[in-house]
Amino acid sequence: LMPTNDPRMAARLHVDAPLDGREIALDEARSHYLRNVLRLQPGARIAVFNARDGEYEASIAAAGKRGSRLAIGARRREPAAEPELWLCFAPIKRARLDAMIEKATELGVSRLVPVVTQHTNMDRVNIERLGAIAVEAAEQSERLSVPEIAAPVDFAELLAAWARPRPLIVGDETGGGAPIGAALSDLRAPVAVLVGPEGGFARREIELLARQDFVRRVGLGPRILKADTAAIAMLAIVQAMIGDGAAPPRFIAADAAS
Amino acid sequence: LMPTNDPRMAARLHVDAPLDGREIALDEARSHYLRNVLRLQPGARIAVFNARDGEYEASIAAAGKRGSRLAIGARRREPAAEPELWLCFAPIKRARLDAMIEKATELGVSRLVPVVTQHTNMDRVNIERLGAIAVEAAEQSERLSVPEIAAPVDFAELLAAWARPRPLIVGDETGGGAPIGAALSDLRAPVAVLVGPEGGFARREIELLARQDFVRRVGLGPRILKADTAAIAMLAIVQAMIGDGAAPPRFIAADAAS
Repeated sequence: LMPTNDPRMAARLHVDAPLDGREIALDEARSHYLRNVLRLQPGARIAVFNARDGEYEASIAAAGKRGSRLAIGARRREPAAEPELWLCFAPIKRARLDAMIEKATELGVSRLVPVVTQHTNMDRVNIERLGAIAVEAAEQSERLSVPEIAAPVDFAELLAAWARPRPLIVGDETGGGAPIGAALSDLRAPVAVLVGPEGGFARREIELLARQDFVRRVGLGPRILKADTAAIAMLAIVQAMIGDGAAPPRFIAADAAS
Repeated sequence: LMPTNDPRMAARLHVDAPLDGREIALDEARSHYLRNVLRLQPGARIAVFNARDGEYEASIAAAGKRGSRLAIGARRREPAAEPELWLCFAPIKRARLDAMIEKATELGVSRLVPVVTQHTNMDRVNIERLGAIAVEAAEQSERLSVPEIAAPVDFAELLAAWARPRPLIVGDETGGGAPIGAALSDLRAPVAVLVGPEGGFARREIELLARQDFVRRVGLGPRILKADTAAIAMLAIVQAMIGDGAAPPRFIAADAAS
């Protein structure tokens, strides 16, 4: 994969530092990536962004073992946060979890909420790794913000402290929900999506869900989807039907080299 | 993951043999799976299915090293092929390709068409492995058919021999297409979806696409999606808006054990 979609830029990096100054210092990890992975020399042009400042051109001013310095150039884009869209998820096996975080970020989630359910194994959850995956997916997908990763929350607490009236959309394999297409024609953003663990929700969790006025159980068609597939499908459908799916692509691709 | 969604059945297997007889022989691979992976004993109940006969109960009649025999019981479901939905894809890196095939199968594709483009590396494509992934995903997602995997076809030939008027939906990152939600309100199934390789389509391929009256370029929102994410998103949106997304789940899940 290319480090950036824009052939004029050698990389696209999320940086926390304010971008309206003349120069910023990069941390060791990002310096290492530019110098040893992408093998960029001083003077190379890259793009840097964060949700507060938008996206700027930058060039490598100095590259050393302890860190690099970037000279900040012209602003390329105004700041623009992703519209609110939450994914609440019970952590699943590592490879599937990583892919789910990557794809949820590409699809524009603003907030990722790990949920501890009865059948969840939290040992496998490394919040820091999930954050790194989200940053990389934000960089590659031309986002201007990185999704927030919430602290893990217990399932019952998630429901008890819910920010009403935000609808919480849950896939329902029992046939108890309206098809997602019909259900969404009745809802407006912002919404949240919830997916369970590999073993499904426990009986008392299903009963708790059924008692919440903000929960919308939806049908996802005749086939049974894995948790990660269900999450990606629901997010894609939400964006296309009531999200920012009608917004034009942020990056106008140059024709690919032939 | 559970070998089956139905707690009354120890496994769910796709088998080619006719299911209307009294007994069938299982090949070595499936026999090995039942005996050594699931550790099932003679008498264990499983479900077997294929597109021609539907789904039947079966029990293990004899298990040996060279193969097992199944006694076929009552029919559980009438045959029901998935509605036509094609995914045409330029093969991508192995892990992403495998996940794309799995998720496309869960989402109900009827036909998977590997497409050779200028930026495609076909060395990495093992059609037999893709077939095995599709069978496993069909078994776990309660499908009654397995997607057909077509022989790889050259990009120009795919377009030149296209089965008009079937619309071919292509994600467009240049802003040249209507948003997918709006585009689909104008289309009816069956449709096909096309995704390119990691490096994108070559310039002459983009020009070829632009000349086809059956190609519908669609916008997928402001962010740039990886090829596998775009494929999964487009298939999910197609099913929800003009596919079988309104059909009830085939499997009525028993409450999960608590």
